[in-house]
Amino acid sequence: MSDTRWLERLGSPNLTDLYQLTMLQAYRHIGMDDTAVFEFFVRKLPEHRNFMLAAGLEQLLDYLTDFRFEAEDLEALRRTDKLDGAFIDSLAHMRFTGDVDAMPEGTVFFGDEPVVRVVAPLPEAQLIETRVVNLLQMQTLIASKAARMRLAAHGHQRLVDFGLRRAHGSEAGLFAARAAWIGGFDGTATVLAHELYGIPIFGTMAHSFIQAHDSEMRAFEDFCRSQPENTVLLIDTYDTEEGARKVVELARKLEPEGFTIRGVRIDSGDLCASAKAVRRILDESGCGDIEIMVSGGLNEDRIADLVAAGIPATGYGVGTDLDVSADAPYLDCVYKIQEYAGIPRRKKSSGKATWPGRKQVFRHYRDDGTFDHDVIGLVDEPLDGEPLLRPVMRGGNPPGGAEPLADIRERAAAQLAALPRELSLLPVAAEPYRVDISEGLRAMAERVDERVEEKD
Amino acid sequence: MSDTRWLERLGSPNLTDLYQLTMLQAYRHIGMDDTAVFEFFVRKLPEHRNFMLAAGLEQLLDYLTDFRFEAEDLEALRRTDKLDGAFIDSLAHMRFTGDVDAMPEGTVFFGDEPVVRVVAPLPEAQLIETRVVNLLQMQTLIASKAARMRLAAHGHQRLVDFGLRRAHGSEAGLFAARAAWIGGFDGTATVLAHELYGIPIFGTMAHSFIQAHDSEMRAFEDFCRSQPENTVLLIDTYDTEEGARKVVELARKLEPEGFTIRGVRIDSGDLCASAKAVRRILDESGCGDIEIMVSGGLNEDRIADLVAAGIPATGYGVGTDLDVSADAPYLDCVYKIQEYAGIPRRKKSSGKATWPGRKQVFRHYRDDGTFDHDVIGLVDEPLDGEPLLRPVMRGGNPPGGAEPLADIRERAAAQLAALPRELSLLPVAAEPYRVDISEGLRAMAERVDERVEEKD
Repeated sequence: MSDTRWLERLGSPNLTDLYQLTMLQAYRHIGMDDTAVFEFFVRKLPEHRNFMLAAGLEQLLDYLTDFRFEAEDLEALRRTDKLDGAFIDSLAHMRFTGDVDAMPEGTVFFGDEPVVRVVAPLPEAQLIETRVVNLLQMQTLIASKAARMRLAAHGHQRLVDFGLRRAHGSEAGLFAARAAWIGGFDGTATVLAHELYGIPIFGTMAHSFIQAHDSEMRAFEDFCRSQPENTVLLIDTYDTEEGARKVVELARKLEPEGFTIRGVRIDSGDLCASAKAVRRILDESGCGDIEIMVSGGLNEDRIADLVAAGIPATGYGVGTDLDVSADAPYLDCVYKIQEYAGIPRRKKSSGKATWPGRKQVFRHYRDDGTFDHDVIGLVDEPLDGEPLLRPVMRGGNPPGGAEPLADIRERAAAQLAALPRELSLLPVAAEPYRVDISEGLRAMAERVDERVEEKD
Repeated sequence: MSDTRWLERLGSPNLTDLYQLTMLQAYRHIGMDDTAVFEFFVRKLPEHRNFMLAAGLEQLLDYLTDFRFEAEDLEALRRTDKLDGAFIDSLAHMRFTGDVDAMPEGTVFFGDEPVVRVVAPLPEAQLIETRVVNLLQMQTLIASKAARMRLAAHGHQRLVDFGLRRAHGSEAGLFAARAAWIGGFDGTATVLAHELYGIPIFGTMAHSFIQAHDSEMRAFEDFCRSQPENTVLLIDTYDTEEGARKVVELARKLEPEGFTIRGVRIDSGDLCASAKAVRRILDESGCGDIEIMVSGGLNEDRIADLVAAGIPATGYGVGTDLDVSADAPYLDCVYKIQEYAGIPRRKKSSGKATWPGRKQVFRHYRDDGTFDHDVIGLVDEPLDGEPLLRPVMRGGNPPGGAEPLADIRERAAAQLAALPRELSLLPVAAEPYRVDISEGLRAMAERVDERVEEKD
């Protein structure tokens, strides 16, 4: 067993909350294994969000497909002294055999709308809760944040994810690259995201490369000679404008040898003023083809400001703010039981009441193709509008092959283009998007409330 | 290969930024492989933090110990078309052979203080950067957040981590449980954290358990009979005070059979008012031994308010705010080159200048044992005070066995007890803790600046 053993255990079903198992033991004890319906949704969008972009479904389906307790998992459960031995033994045979309907990744959604619906025997539907939320929240957060940056950058600027180091752990860093790509980024610095998802990777040098050399000029030249096709030079280690002048000098020196410097990167100071000064230095010296990339503390607001101020940059490297969704690092998202044994269920906890039953989201469009409003209704209610949840898993078997990531990314772009204008602007809209509750759903909620009062 | 294949790749050295590899290729090309010194530090503490608690070192040392490129990793690098074949081949032999000095986990530290120092051949010291920051930032964030909650809860209340579902991915959820335990939490709901780290686990039931039953009373009874030793009942699904009355009724019914209800949990509404009302109902009915646990949207400020308002609760379940460090979801932390080939180095980028050389932190104490101030100096400077960085790895070999987690947790508690009073209060202190820069370090920085100006 290696020292980094924890990595080999992250796929264990024991990566869950203990209460999933204590509840399951009670269900087995009582024999409650009828069909349950759970839905994943965001109760209320974060303060700084007009919309969310769904992401993480592929990983959720993979998790459900691979779900099983191995001997090692069961042995660890025995050591907790919290559960019956016979119950633990029974887990060896447990698989996920249910149905899943979901909004495809890259779909825009709003508060209270079910994004994923699971229909399965109660123990199976319950046991997966923790990882369902864990997998869907994180990528949805990052895809939504990335989409805001894409809107701020007006579509034609290159956006690259630089955030792996500041992501919360290894899986978060990898998934951030995937989610950012879905949300409209052009690539990532994360090598593993290229290997696993085919996302374009970008990267040249850090300040340490310059600092390790005794001379900045020498560092630039060494790098160009080592990477003739990948020459973006970082010019702000000591003095940005001096750095730009060295780049000009080097470009002239290397040109006869066939080397081309493709760009420079500025990572500190007043990015707009620096970029304008550098652009002037490059242009006046016949280096108009050398592009400028900026990075350092960027987010959608700063990108919008830089674009508005006319920054002569063609690329933005975004790290921390993207990879932790810094202004909204979590969602008020839940995975709640809505029906058991054919009877709709509803939680009435103060401030946390839910809509019962199996639901569908019906989207209505304006004549120009933009979203007008959504209706949350019951799956079997005859309602107009485009139903957003589609079948993605039946009987625990995924429908052959994951959706290509490029298709998801295209869907996300089309969805962002169809956002009502007031929602696609960066400040949060005064009027949130209209989401109606259908008559059928309201009537069902009333019946559920009456029934609970009668029974208890 | 399983569907959840990404989990099998998170340990790959390809989970890094592309620029680490492009820089490495240039270093190989030029033959730059002299000894480099890098340090990890936080430039400026987040707005809402008086201090940070170091965590994540064990995982970093494990990562360095296991570091190697396997055939699969090299093959993936070839497919990127970004690097020389000969360079990729050379990576097969790469190991981490350097020295590491670090503040032990559970040590309180402040801005600009080196927390980890790496001394290794330049390519090795550089290549690990991304994961060094990724591993140290996340646990340090959570341990620090947990410590604030421990201070708010005054030491005698039970704090339990409920946050796995809202953590950013699997590794973050697991590490959050570990870091929270270091910071003073009493346990976690995360089963895998018990398996891997021996952390006590807690957990009983979710609202879905109540909702799946037709009657709340029946749900309570079923659960008690299934888990006679683990009976904390969730009473806010429909009406909290009604729930408490049912618990009383059930306690009377089950007592003759030898069942004991240990506690109730309230997860919504006005937690303080609800807990007081429930306490009254329980006490008036002879159920004074049944404890009250609260959860739902808790953080250090809310816990402090609840404690100040005299909430009759003995336990707090904390999820989201802890596991994403919601008010400070990232650190302005970096891993920077400070010396190469025996020559100290310094970055001068606007707003991001660093202190050069191999450094040590010297802590000074008041007579009552609390921290007075720290001095950042050079390792070989003859300075008073307790040196905080200690040797933890020599020549790539860890010093036999990880530090027991219980020792780390005790150290953290002792450090929190030694905080100056103004820093242990929740609002951020007007006066930050005093951290001085030694004369020797200032003089070195000046010499470095003069040298760079001469050379360039």
